[in-house]
Amino acid sequence: MNEVLKQIKERKSVRVFEDRKIEPNIKEEILQSAFEAPTAGCMMLYSILDITDEKLKAELAIACDNQPFIAKAPLVLIFLADYQRWYDTFTLNDCSPRNPGEGDILLACADAIIAAQNTVVAAESLGIGSCYIGDILENCETIRELLDLPDYCIPAAMIVYGYPTQQQKDRQKPIRFEKEYIVYENTYRRLTKQEHGEMHQIRNEKRGLNKRSIEEIKALCNRKYMSDFSLEMNRSAGEYLKKFR
Amino acid sequence: MNEVLKQIKERKSVRVFEDRKIEPNIKEEILQSAFEAPTAGCMMLYSILDITDEKLKAELAIACDNQPFIAKAPLVLIFLADYQRWYDTFTLNDCSPRNPGEGDILLACADAIIAAQNTVVAAESLGIGSCYIGDILENCETIRELLDLPDYCIPAAMIVYGYPTQQQKDRQKPIRFEKEYIVYENTYRRLTKQEHGEMHQIRNEKRGLNKRSIEEIKALCNRKYMSDFSLEMNRSAGEYLKKFR
Repeated sequence: MNEVLKQIKERKSVRVFEDRKIEPNIKEEILQSAFEAPTAGCMMLYSILDITDEKLKAELAIACDNQPFIAKAPLVLIFLADYQRWYDTFTLNDCSPRNPGEGDILLACADAIIAAQNTVVAAESLGIGSCYIGDILENCETIRELLDLPDYCIPAAMIVYGYPTQQQKDRQKPIRFEKEYIVYENTYRRLTKQEHGEMHQIRNEKRGLNKRSIEEIKALCNRKYMSDFSLEMNRSAGEYLKKFR
Repeated sequence: MNEVLKQIKERKSVRVFEDRKIEPNIKEEILQSAFEAPTAGCMMLYSILDITDEKLKAELAIACDNQPFIAKAPLVLIFLADYQRWYDTFTLNDCSPRNPGEGDILLACADAIIAAQNTVVAAESLGIGSCYIGDILENCETIRELLDLPDYCIPAAMIVYGYPTQQQKDRQKPIRFEKEYIVYENTYRRLTKQEHGEMHQIRNEKRGLNKRSIEEIKALCNRKYMSDFSLEMNRSAGEYLKKFR
């Protein structure tokens, strides 16, 4: 196994950081790795907000389902799916563009996440842990105000970075589902009830969980899918997407 | 610069492949790298379609803005943002779930692209080139039928992989815009007309283009943003997203 594959395999999310700044040259390497990512039509349909203001970090930690570790991260980047810049470029250069649509913004979300994941891989190679914060999609109105977002930007991901504590380094990486439930040949296949059960049962056994999979699924449905933050994320995402219809 | 950063820097998209199969163990490494990617709540909100049927590859090449090189790629993977599997898991286990919403599917798109980009980085480390095909978002009805997609799946990305020809290895990587136009501190900043001009002018000079940037911008707006494939992508994306409202 080569060094790249080894690091991809070992990388896990880090939510507790050492009290240690990320050096400017290291931060620069992380940002540069974003720009090296593939981008649709070489258009760079994203922007990156580098959150250096400690007060703003604290406000984001609250807006993102109240997770204080966000405010403690030495580096916080927000990857915006950004069609505003191109729309402005076109408008300011007499192009009479149409308004950006739902396909444009999905493509921009992909661009933003491709760049984001490059920074995660790059950070890992520099000894720096990271964690995606999906909750940045919540509270559209607050986030728009905090970050001065125009209509044609959506926060596709927030990532926090820092040097991992020893406890975080020692933590076991969460167990994934087996390949057979995730990869299908040629066409999509809906799993049977039995396969759904097996998919969870196998993972639970690997985790050392004794719970019956049906109980775990019900608990997860309540804790995540039916939770307030999940309902809020759907409402908020709808607000962002409205601008692209 | 470490090996990971070096490979991220050197990686560029490859659209012409050697007539050489990807060995099964190498393909397995590429797929495994997807599963190692971070995933929201460890839920793996994606599925991967491994397109092995040559007839299907040819049909996808046509549906994706008629790009024959897609059909010639030895490995073609489609990364689906997939909330169908979890919705089915919940339904089949008496959870009475709500329908998946716009936040759910944006989160799933992020999950799918994070996994996809890990495979791109992993492939590069194995000497294998790759190219994202954003056009997979077009022609919703055709793609749904070809891939048997249920309502709660969206094709977030298609990637083609293969060993690059020497010509592709020697090709110059496309020049990106300068960092100052992409990264902002704390809050979003809309660029002035002058900055938009400079952003393009600097890139054009680095590319050795003599064209005035306004002419290039107008040409790009017509060729890409106002093109038939772009309008189709927006229509099609709207069809996919409708199911999540």
